[in-house]
Amino acid sequence: MLLNSDNFKGFPRRYRSNFFNSLLGYKPVLLVGSKSKGGKENLAVFSSAVHFGADPPLVGLVSRPHSVERHTLENIKETGSYTLSHVSPHFFKAAHQSSAKYPANISEFAAVGLSPAYQTNFQAPYVNESEVKIGLSLKEIVPIKLNNTLLIIGQIKWVELAKQNILQDGSLDFDALETISVTGLDTYHQATKLEKLPYARPESSK
Amino acid sequence: MLLNSDNFKGFPRRYRSNFFNSLLGYKPVLLVGSKSKGGKENLAVFSSAVHFGADPPLVGLVSRPHSVERHTLENIKETGSYTLSHVSPHFFKAAHQSSAKYPANISEFAAVGLSPAYQTNFQAPYVNESEVKIGLSLKEIVPIKLNNTLLIIGQIKWVELAKQNILQDGSLDFDALETISVTGLDTYHQATKLEKLPYARPESSK
Repeated sequence: MLLNSDNFKGFPRRYRSNFFNSLLGYKPVLLVGSKSKGGKENLAVFSSAVHFGADPPLVGLVSRPHSVERHTLENIKETGSYTLSHVSPHFFKAAHQSSAKYPANISEFAAVGLSPAYQTNFQAPYVNESEVKIGLSLKEIVPIKLNNTLLIIGQIKWVELAKQNILQDGSLDFDALETISVTGLDTYHQATKLEKLPYARPESSK
Repeated sequence: MLLNSDNFKGFPRRYRSNFFNSLLGYKPVLLVGSKSKGGKENLAVFSSAVHFGADPPLVGLVSRPHSVERHTLENIKETGSYTLSHVSPHFFKAAHQSSAKYPANISEFAAVGLSPAYQTNFQAPYVNESEVKIGLSLKEIVPIKLNNTLLIIGQIKWVELAKQNILQDGSLDFDALETISVTGLDTYHQATKLEKLPYARPESSK
């Protein structure tokens, strides 16, 4: 079936959102932890994280200025500090629940039953239940005028994980980690490795 | 184990690349198809696609200006047209092989054994073996000065997939599609659904 712009225009709003949010396939699901200057902790689930480079280590997050992610965005702007925590099978429902529109005076950590924890001298809390926690410092917020979104770019300052979950070549051992992924807005998945392939060279063409 | 910026500086180059490329978890793996004005077809595998919005439907791709993705980038700039094709288990090795540094006169389609196909009046080829093909029109290239990368933003003009692979709510049926994902630069995975969760509301907190 071929769908074009005319078909897209006829999609009901929620159908359209589900279609395009799921269209690219599996996405990382990460909990973004932050804390306001006044000390209010905040937690929000994001599926829009993208690797921007390894040297310096940069991560991009796409955010809508007036969405449920608003408190996260305000805290990041205010403090320059935030964390990303991987999601495991035993708490993916709590992670999903953090996307509910809680009032500003409620900490999503408490509301969904996850534990905030801290690195020394780092403002933003991470999720203690997580197997991989990442601390970031805001570098730049790039406004995308096309649709009034923001690209939040941060530099990775620290990573906490168990040593045995790093393979010899530096990549994370996802067989051991059990980190989950998401498609669309609401569907969570566990993965099984097919294969780790060697570096591709022209002469290895079939 | 806590790793910080000092540790990162001590990572060997390839180790560092593997570590940060895999750090965020599962990523979509998509084949980007393009064709130069002169008619040369090009195919490249990307794991940096990110959803930027549903209305209009926008997709971002992170690209390094001088990497193996150079021909793809040149074609997109020249023609404004490109495609994204999902990767299935039966051709993920061919998809990976497209990341090899082939000379400019070689089509990666032929080199890796995948078939280019076309929509009427659309410049860029897609991968005929793929279950989901997406046609895009370039909207904006955003330079990210922090590390000299580019964010390529395109609007989705058409999508081709089997009707039965769309669920009633508009999201894609990944149980049926068997689309695969990638971690890091080289490790491919198949996923199993844990659960599709209801829209989260504050009152459904535990």
